[in-house]
Amino acid sequence: MNAPVNFDQLEVGFDIPALPGMDEADIQTPCLVLDLDALERNIRKMGDYARAHGMRHRAHGKMHKSVDVLKLQMELGGAVGVCCQKVSEAEVFVRGGIKEVLVSNQVRDPAKIDRLARLPEQGADIIVCVDDVANVAELSAAAQRYGTRLGIFVEIDCGAGRCGVTTTPAVVEIVRAVEAAPNLSYRGIQAYQGAMQHMDSFEDRQAKIDAAVAQVKDAVDTLKSEGIDTELVSGGGTGSYYFESTSGVYNELQCGSYAFMDADYGRILDKDGKRIDAGEWENAFFILTSVMSHAKADKAICDAGLKAQSVDSGLPVIFGRDDVEYVKCSDEHGVISDPKGVLKVNDKLRLVPGHCDPTANVHDWYVGVRNGKVECVWPVSARGKAY
Amino acid sequence: MNAPVNFDQLEVGFDIPALPGMDEADIQTPCLVLDLDALERNIRKMGDYARAHGMRHRAHGKMHKSVDVLKLQMELGGAVGVCCQKVSEAEVFVRGGIKEVLVSNQVRDPAKIDRLARLPEQGADIIVCVDDVANVAELSAAAQRYGTRLGIFVEIDCGAGRCGVTTTPAVVEIVRAVEAAPNLSYRGIQAYQGAMQHMDSFEDRQAKIDAAVAQVKDAVDTLKSEGIDTELVSGGGTGSYYFESTSGVYNELQCGSYAFMDADYGRILDKDGKRIDAGEWENAFFILTSVMSHAKADKAICDAGLKAQSVDSGLPVIFGRDDVEYVKCSDEHGVISDPKGVLKVNDKLRLVPGHCDPTANVHDWYVGVRNGKVECVWPVSARGKAY
Repeated sequence: MNAPVNFDQLEVGFDIPALPGMDEADIQTPCLVLDLDALERNIRKMGDYARAHGMRHRAHGKMHKSVDVLKLQMELGGAVGVCCQKVSEAEVFVRGGIKEVLVSNQVRDPAKIDRLARLPEQGADIIVCVDDVANVAELSAAAQRYGTRLGIFVEIDCGAGRCGVTTTPAVVEIVRAVEAAPNLSYRGIQAYQGAMQHMDSFEDRQAKIDAAVAQVKDAVDTLKSEGIDTELVSGGGTGSYYFESTSGVYNELQCGSYAFMDADYGRILDKDGKRIDAGEWENAFFILTSVMSHAKADKAICDAGLKAQSVDSGLPVIFGRDDVEYVKCSDEHGVISDPKGVLKVNDKLRLVPGHCDPTANVHDWYVGVRNGKVECVWPVSARGKAY
Repeated sequence: MNAPVNFDQLEVGFDIPALPGMDEADIQTPCLVLDLDALERNIRKMGDYARAHGMRHRAHGKMHKSVDVLKLQMELGGAVGVCCQKVSEAEVFVRGGIKEVLVSNQVRDPAKIDRLARLPEQGADIIVCVDDVANVAELSAAAQRYGTRLGIFVEIDCGAGRCGVTTTPAVVEIVRAVEAAPNLSYRGIQAYQGAMQHMDSFEDRQAKIDAAVAQVKDAVDTLKSEGIDTELVSGGGTGSYYFESTSGVYNELQCGSYAFMDADYGRILDKDGKRIDAGEWENAFFILTSVMSHAKADKAICDAGLKAQSVDSGLPVIFGRDDVEYVKCSDEHGVISDPKGVLKVNDKLRLVPGHCDPTANVHDWYVGVRNGKVECVWPVSARGKAY
């Protein structure tokens, strides 16, 4: 999975949008482009922040699904490993050589549990989330079958309203079951407040995290009073990491989108009321698109539509331009309002997608550019690894 | 590309969600499932309709991106070939043995034009759309370079508001340029009214198509009066094919979604005011999903989120169930309202996605089921072929 790509066997325009060494102008569109300078600055900045605050950073691989991006986060940003959402994603990262892998999600299907329990055989420290005491015996049986050990995070629903238990007694019940179960180790608490990450106001986000921190602290303190230490308290995203980092309760971050940025995250405000994409993080992730029709004077049609992105969090924004606007999206087309008729056929534009995670998942390749040249082309290693 | 899949090399749960011969219960979720009986009935029905009305049916391959589904449309439904939106998709279908391939879109990038012009070397009859007279010389030069011949459809924008010319003189200008250009042949008119396909009311759709038909007829009649015959007038979708088929102007349909159906198309009404998924077409295309958490009594969390579908046209509908409802979607999770707590962990549900085309494009495989067994697993052959 992380074997070097054999570019000789790939045909540009059919298998792959570009080859390393090409001029940026020759990239086939639509495709994903990474501004490597901006990406590296984002990664270093988060690494510096985590280090300065004594936090581990387990970068969220579900965002980029890329072994190469994750390795950059480890090398430049000091990330300790990865979190991901699916067993098949974990397999990609383990095969790619990553040693600390958290499946920040529930695994209940027997075949998936079986695969998960075999992953430590490849030398990886595997942790998985549990929110149902019945899951403990399933995981323990599988780990015993292979003679492996699985780490367990108890997932607390601290506001996202998805998976996770909501009370301290429920946490304690699961931890006690884990402590009694062969081949499992209680490793900590998963408490990611996903629902607040995209709230515009810094103060609104802070209020949500304050409530989450109190909830998690109660569970950790109660466990402690019963003689059970909690090694890791993990959570935090691009819209909240400063709260978890100064909470005195969390010791591990799970940020993902900071590295790429997207239009929806970019709109949230920092403590000074400034958009986070106007200083805190740079846009490093784009859909490169070409104008392919301009049959109407005030409207350009580009080649990036619904098959090149996810519009669940809104339409993409054209990077660095305020004279043209992406106003409509259909399967293979984007309609760009061009009131002054400044665009020409074959002009290329960089789009900042509304939502980076599901947009990355549509593509097979990242084209990394620097100084007008294609420096690298990386596979979206875990693309389509949903099952 | 259409070489038989070597299932021996594929690991279930990592590379592929199922293998032929498996029980339906063992399919790894989330994944795409085709109800083969329903699919075949839909395909036969459209074929019968087209035949009865003397229409060619060039099935739209951009919907399913599958050589296998297209071959079924040709074998059971009498489809004459395929249309698609990208040169890379056309390459997939040509490599898969399809002989009549229309790129129902503009091709302007020099590298893409070059690849398009080589496709007839593989024995395929290639047609491409033009909406700008400047494109004629580009295509002609490329076809001359390879000694091939490209067919040209002039695209009329008959209401979709994307690509296409809007006046008869503009059509005539392009046709005259094509007739004068070496290695190009004027083959007909592309006139797909995409914007009306999803209007609920039959009468509203009819009014839009009446206008489109008048616009196309004017162009065809004008060309005829100048001594130029139009071989093909092509268009029509799942929400309109009966209008084009009885127009006396169109002679080729381009329907796609009828074969799979989806939630957004299903809601439009037929001439009797009945939803088209309640008789006209069957749901044959599903996202199979599993319940993976039920930590709250009234809420089940399933494993199909934004990485398993596109929600541009709304959330998916749970097939055959009115006691539970898919109410929210995040990257890897779907929240299912389960007020009576009827669902259990590992229960499987079939979701009818909001929009079939971009949902198919997220997945690598179709799992074809019949009588509780996996009968076939087909690659989404042109998945990711966006450039």
